[in-house]
This record gives sequence, C-alpha cells and structure tokens, in this order.
Amino acid sequence: MSQYPPTPSPGDAHPASAAAGAGAAAGSRLDRWVGTYARRTASMTASEIRALFAVANRPEVVSLAGGMPYLPALPLDALADLTARLVAEKGAVALQYGSGQGEERLREQIVEVMRPQGIEAHPDDVVVTTGSQQALDLVSRVFLDPGDVVLAEAPSYVGALGVFRSYQAQVEHVPLDHDGLQPAALEEALTRLARAGKRVKFLYTVPNHHNPAGVTLSLGRRHEVLAIARRHGLLVLEDDPYALLGFDGDPLPALRSMDADHVVHLGSFSKTFAPGYRVGWAVAPHAVRDKLVLASESAILCPTSFGQFAIAEYLSCHDWLGQVKVFRELYRERRDALLAALSAHLPHATWTHPRGGFYVWLTLPEGLDSGAMLPRAVTGRVAYVPGRAFYADGTGQRFLRLSYCFPTAERITEGVRRLAGVVRDELEVVQMFGPTAPRAGRPAVDGPGPELA
Amino acid sequence: MSQYPPTPSPGDAHPASAAAGAGAAAGSRLDRWVGTYARRTASMTASEIRALFAVANRPEVVSLAGGMPYLPALPLDALADLTARLVAEKGAVALQYGSGQGEERLREQIVEVMRPQGIEAHPDDVVVTTGSQQALDLVSRVFLDPGDVVLAEAPSYVGALGVFRSYQAQVEHVPLDHDGLQPAALEEALTRLARAGKRVKFLYTVPNHHNPAGVTLSLGRRHEVLAIARRHGLLVLEDDPYALLGFDGDPLPALRSMDADHVVHLGSFSKTFAPGYRVGWAVAPHAVRDKLVLASESAILCPTSFGQFAIAEYLSCHDWLGQVKVFRELYRERRDALLAALSAHLPHATWTHPRGGFYVWLTLPEGLDSGAMLPRAVTGRVAYVPGRAFYADGTGQRFLRLSYCFPTAERITEGVRRLAGVVRDELEVVQMFGPTAPRAGRPAVDGPGPELA
Repeated sequence: MSQYPPTPSPGDAHPASAAAGAGAAAGSRLDRWVGTYARRTASMTASEIRALFAVANRPEVVSLAGGMPYLPALPLDALADLTARLVAEKGAVALQYGSGQGEERLREQIVEVMRPQGIEAHPDDVVVTTGSQQALDLVSRVFLDPGDVVLAEAPSYVGALGVFRSYQAQVEHVPLDHDGLQPAALEEALTRLARAGKRVKFLYTVPNHHNPAGVTLSLGRRHEVLAIARRHGLLVLEDDPYALLGFDGDPLPALRSMDADHVVHLGSFSKTFAPGYRVGWAVAPHAVRDKLVLASESAILCPTSFGQFAIAEYLSCHDWLGQVKVFRELYRERRDALLAALSAHLPHATWTHPRGGFYVWLTLPEGLDSGAMLPRAVTGRVAYVPGRAFYADGTGQRFLRLSYCFPTAERITEGVRRLAGVVRDELEVVQMFGPTAPRAGRPAVDGPGPELA
Repeated sequence: MSQYPPTPSPGDAHPASAAAGAGAAAGSRLDRWVGTYARRTASMTASEIRALFAVANRPEVVSLAGGMPYLPALPLDALADLTARLVAEKGAVALQYGSGQGEERLREQIVEVMRPQGIEAHPDDVVVTTGSQQALDLVSRVFLDPGDVVLAEAPSYVGALGVFRSYQAQVEHVPLDHDGLQPAALEEALTRLARAGKRVKFLYTVPNHHNPAGVTLSLGRRHEVLAIARRHGLLVLEDDPYALLGFDGDPLPALRSMDADHVVHLGSFSKTFAPGYRVGWAVAPHAVRDKLVLASESAILCPTSFGQFAIAEYLSCHDWLGQVKVFRELYRERRDALLAALSAHLPHATWTHPRGGFYVWLTLPEGLDSGAMLPRAVTGRVAYVPGRAFYADGTGQRFLRLSYCFPTAERITEGVRRLAGVVRDELEVVQMFGPTAPRAGRPAVDGPGPELA
C-alpha cells in the first residue's frame, strides 16, 4: 500500500533540474528548495522501515503490521444499492460542498453512536473530520506552539506522535500497564513538568483497546485521571476509535461522559464501518469546537459531503450495530488465534491480552531488538511494527505490535509460527554474540503512514 | 450552508462549565482554554460576514456569493450506476485505507487531465489531496515559518489568504490588471523585500480565470513571471482549478508546463466534476513532493480511497471532457447574463470580463464600501462577497465579487437588478451624507468557509 521508496521518474532527469545551481543534496537527489523549508519540515523524513513495508505487503508475507479493518465482511451489495440511490436521488447535494462543521444529520447520528459510552452530547458539539487523524491534526493546530509539552502513554499511537512532532511539540511519556495509563505517574509527570516551568497543553490517551498496547483504562482510573486533569487544569484528548469493538460486553463510560469540560473526544467510522470515506469526528467544548471548525475550513474547506451522506444512509438504513457485532466476533476469533499461537510458539516472550480492538503488544526476550529483527522477519515472510515507532524518545526496542484484524486465523497462526522461528534464530545469535546494541535516538517511523493506521 | 453563528446548545448550560473558575470571556461565553491556545489560533475568529451568509442562503435571496459548481448538470443516473458497480465489485478496496500519495491509477489519469495545458508530468510527481485547499495547507506547512513572506495577487483567493495567515505568514500583495499579475510589480516587490531582509517563500497565483478577479495571466506574462522566479530563486504556487473552464478555446500553457523546477501546480476535480468527494492534487518537484506526502499523512493519513476510485471510474467510463463542455456552455450563458445585466443596470460601476471560470470582479462607484453595503444588499435579497475578504491588508472596500456559476440566468438578472437598487440607494446616502468611512484593518473574512470556495 505504501509508495515508499519513491520510484525514479522522468522528472528526476529533467534537464533544467540537472542544471540547478542552487540545489543541495537531499539523499541522492538535488533539492533546490532545501534551504527554504519551514523548521517543522526538518523532522519530515521517510524511514527505512517504510521501504520494508512495501515488501511486507506482498501476498507471500503474513502481515501482522497493518491496522486495516476486514472489509470483506461488509454487506457490499446492500451498500451498492444504498450508494446508487444516494447518487441518483440526492447527488446534486451529496456531491456539493458542505458545511465546515459537517452535515447536521450525520452529527445527530454521531450523538447516537456515542450513547453506548454514556456520552450525552448535542449535534452542535460535534465537528466532522477527515478521519480522526485530521481531528488530531486540528487539535494540535489549535493548541500547540513549538516547545509545548504533550503527555502521551508509553507506548502511544504512532500517527499521533507524528502529528505532535510536526507541530514541534515535545512528547513526555506516561507509562501504562494492563489497566491502562497509570494515574500516579501522570500526577508525577505534571508536578515534575510544572516545576521545570514546562507548558503542558494536553494529555493524549487511547483509553479503549489501546493502539498499540491492547489494554483498556479501568473505570477507577478513568475517575482518577479526570480528577487529576481538573486539579491541574489539564485538557484530555480522548482518542477512541475502538470503543465499540470490545469482546466482553458493553464499553466502559468514555472520559467525555464523565467530564464535558476537560475532554476533547475523538471518534471514527474507520474501524466500525470503513475508512475509505475518511470520516471521523471530534466532540469538544464550544469555544474549542469553534476553533476546530475554523482550523478545518482553513485545512480542507469542508469534509466530504458524499462520505457523510453515504454513512448517514448506512446508519439509518442498515443494522449498523449488527454489523459491528459481526466485526467483533470476527476479530475475537482472530485474537484468540493469535493468543493461542503465541502461547504455543513463543515461550520466551510475553504479551498483552486485549479484550477488544486490533492489537497485541509483545515483549521480546531480553537482548532482542524488534527494529533490528524486522528485515529478518520480512525475509522470513512475516511482518509487524517495531516498538520504537510508538515512542517519542527512541526507546521501545524490546517491543513490537501485532495486529490480528486483517489476516484470517489460519494466516495469523502461520505468521506467528514464522515469527517464532525468527525469534529463535535471533536468540541464538544473541546468545552467541551478545545483544544487539540498543539504538536509541530518533523514532523509527517518522510519519504515521496509512499502513500503521 | 454555513453553521455560523453557532446556536446555543445544552452544553452551554453545563453546570460544571458554569462553575469553571479558570474560564475567561471569549465573546459572551466562558472559555476555560483561552489561555492555552497556540499563537496561530489568535487569528481564528468567525467574522460577522459569515452570519450574513447564513441569511444569504435563504431561497428568497439571489446569492451571487458562492463558488459552487452547478451540479444538477451532472449525469446523476449514469453516476449512480457507476458508483453502485464500484461498491459491489471493488468495495473492499475502495472503502479501505489507501496510499498517502494517492491511488496510482488516478494519478495516471490526472497526468492526462493536465495534458491540454501542456503539462508533461509523471504519475509519481502527483500527490492527491483533500481538495486543492488541502494542497494549499500542505505547501504552507512545508514552507512557512511564522513571519515568512508570501506574495499574492491583489486581490487573492480568500481561502489561500486564510491558510497563509494560519501559518503566521505575512502576505504582500502584487497588483494585477486585465492581463493578470503585473510582472514589473512582482520584480519590484521582490527587490524591495530582499532589501528589507524579508524571506519570501513563494508566489501564490491563480493564473486562469482568477478567483476573485476573473482575469487570466497572458502568455507573455507567464514567461516573464517565470523568468523573474528563476532569477530570484522563487517558488511559484500555481493554483489552477478553472483551467478547463475557459469559454474561448484551449487553455493557455500552465506555468508548470514551462518550468517543472520552480512551480508547484495545484489542480482539482471540484469545478470540472464535483467537490463532494474532496479530491484535488499537487504536482511538485520530487523532493517537495516527498515532503507533501509526509505532511499529508500526518494531517489525514491518506486521501479518500472511495472518492479517488469513483473519480477514476468516472474519468475512464464517462465522456468527462464532454461534461466539462456542458459546464462551460452553461457558465458562458450565465456569464453573458451577468455582464448584460450589469451593463443594463449598473452604469456607475465597472467590472472585469471573464473569459472562463466563475467570477466577475466589480468596482463600486467612488465613496461606496461593499462591506458596509452588504447587510442592506442581503435585506434587498441579493448577496455577494465584499472585496475586503480578498485582501490581506484590510483594503478592497470598493470591490466585490459576483459569481455566476450557480444561479440560473434569470435569477442572475434579477439579482443584478436588486443589486443596482441597493447601489442606487447607497449612492444617494453618500451624496447626502458623504462617503462611508473606509474601514481598513483586519480582513473581513477570517476563514475561507465552504461558501466562498
């Protein structure tokens, strides 16, 4: 799916380009504009890992790397009918520009979609965005000056870390465990940063079925985190695409359901329906909501009318909650396959036991480095995302993320078998020559990349 | 279409919100986060004009304000069939995440779409964006630090000015006339700014059927502008959504067709097909293209797969150029209606004579202020965009933009009749009491807003 590494094209050999006296070396190419980029652009470079993912997308490789929902489970024929009706009957509106905040009908439905999490919102609180990735970007745009601090779990969603970095913010990690973010560590970080005179703009958290850690913030800790937020005047950015994909009953109350003033809540149709329309949303206090709408209009004018109309039709004409249940059962089966295969084949590793969502977080035996091991894994026809991608501080070498959302149970089992072989070989090398030198420094993946969604 | 002014909602009366000790007044509301916004956010405020547009969208008002293409002219039944087939046969891919750079098939087609303008590009030079508004945002993100200078025509597209402002850039205007941007003035501005030690990051220009001025950069001036760009090492951002909507034969060669190294070219399907999928593109030198892709992945992960697939199907299965011709004839007829009505009813004003695109730029009689007049115009059931929206320096009071793209010829004629009445009344007032005090200062429209697309 990735376009990296960029393939050479005729433009590279353009005569005027070759004659460019002002060009400066950037990789192996001349870039005459290299001296004119913004400071924020300095951090934008494609990582070596993404070249590997291009290989990892070959059919012979079992990819446990991506976060793509399993769309063949969608009722495509019913969707085709519904979409055709939409174009024929409402095309002149559905294909037109729309409101910067998003279509009112969809915002009303989004309020209903959030109700199982205890969220009482008004459609006017909702801003529709180009996936919740854009919501992350807009919140960062509205709040972050260079040098500001964002608190985020360790590990944290790679796409969020990329956004915060692009706004030249400094990410300070707060550890999590099997019950999610540790409130005591949050309190400690806030106190330490306040003492150091640092400006903390918000806490970024994925409370349900965490990406990449696969853990869920317990109910007790939700109350604790919000009490800390109120005490410190801290905004909480609750990124919550997986809430409805829990395997064990109803979702826990969202942070937003417990405090409407200190929480900006992000949701998405990408995991419960499909990502291809790029429709997510933010729920925010009104003054913040106003800023988000203005920022979004500046960024894209308005979100896709067609995607919003199509999803609105789907929500109102189809048993969408039934479809979420179909997804849930499918992912549960695949999670079970992954956990069983790990137990059977990876005796020297440990891992989390997700109760929903897409991801298992695995800790390699001491001395192994998931980044250094990745090329050998891909050669062994299995792919994962190295842990370092999920840390802003260059750590995370012993961890890796495994996704069970897209491959079938059989492929998952085969993938883990292959991974186990790679780990065994790697352990032998380490036992013979000592551990791979830990490579701290800049994070392993610079942009989120759709393959890491 | 606009959501402004925001209507009160239950959230406003939230008890915890009322109890917020840390809140500060922002308008009439408490905003507890007002002290935590980024510096760039200070400029994000909704203008009074947008409240008027909410009224202007009522059916009894003839709106000559919006830049919405006339979508009822689309072959909706054929589109419905094509869309249904797409969902049924390729839904599992078309509704999935896609590449950050955009689908290869669509990028190949975009190369063909640009060929009538003499552009020789490779699909790998193209980045698909969420409308060309996102391309404006991405180019700004990659190049602009606070305080950097952007050169832009006077007047200039309101949405671009909003983006540059959101990146805290300083816009310096370069005058245009009936042949577009004035090269001598560009040269003079560059020399003056260099002497002042200012950092000019790029020139922003709409060469064809300018928004809002309705003029086209002549061929001779295209060569001159590029010669100046090469001499000064200046990047040119060529924003070109209207190229194929010329009424008098083939489009002029694009700036990008004459210089692949100094030009980032932006295109869009919003005016030649439909804006509702939000699909535009940028063509850039490779190193810049790489940065744009990384910036886009950070902003939205990837552009809409579905929109790209749908447009690719439309381009390959439908006589899309024939459809562009249908639009062109329709807009030509409406332009003729507008120009005829202006000649008949507005003897004391002058205006441009567009040979394509959507817009006429009108100069009011001396002493009139288009911004001050707008409330009276809306009361008189006609709407336009005041000129001040298109200037970064608070000038432009005597101008206004009229769009002929959406209303029928009859409605346009009626709208101009109403406008003429408003101007007559306004002139009487001015003759009796002297001119309205010119109100320079901050621009009249802060965000672009979809209604000004």
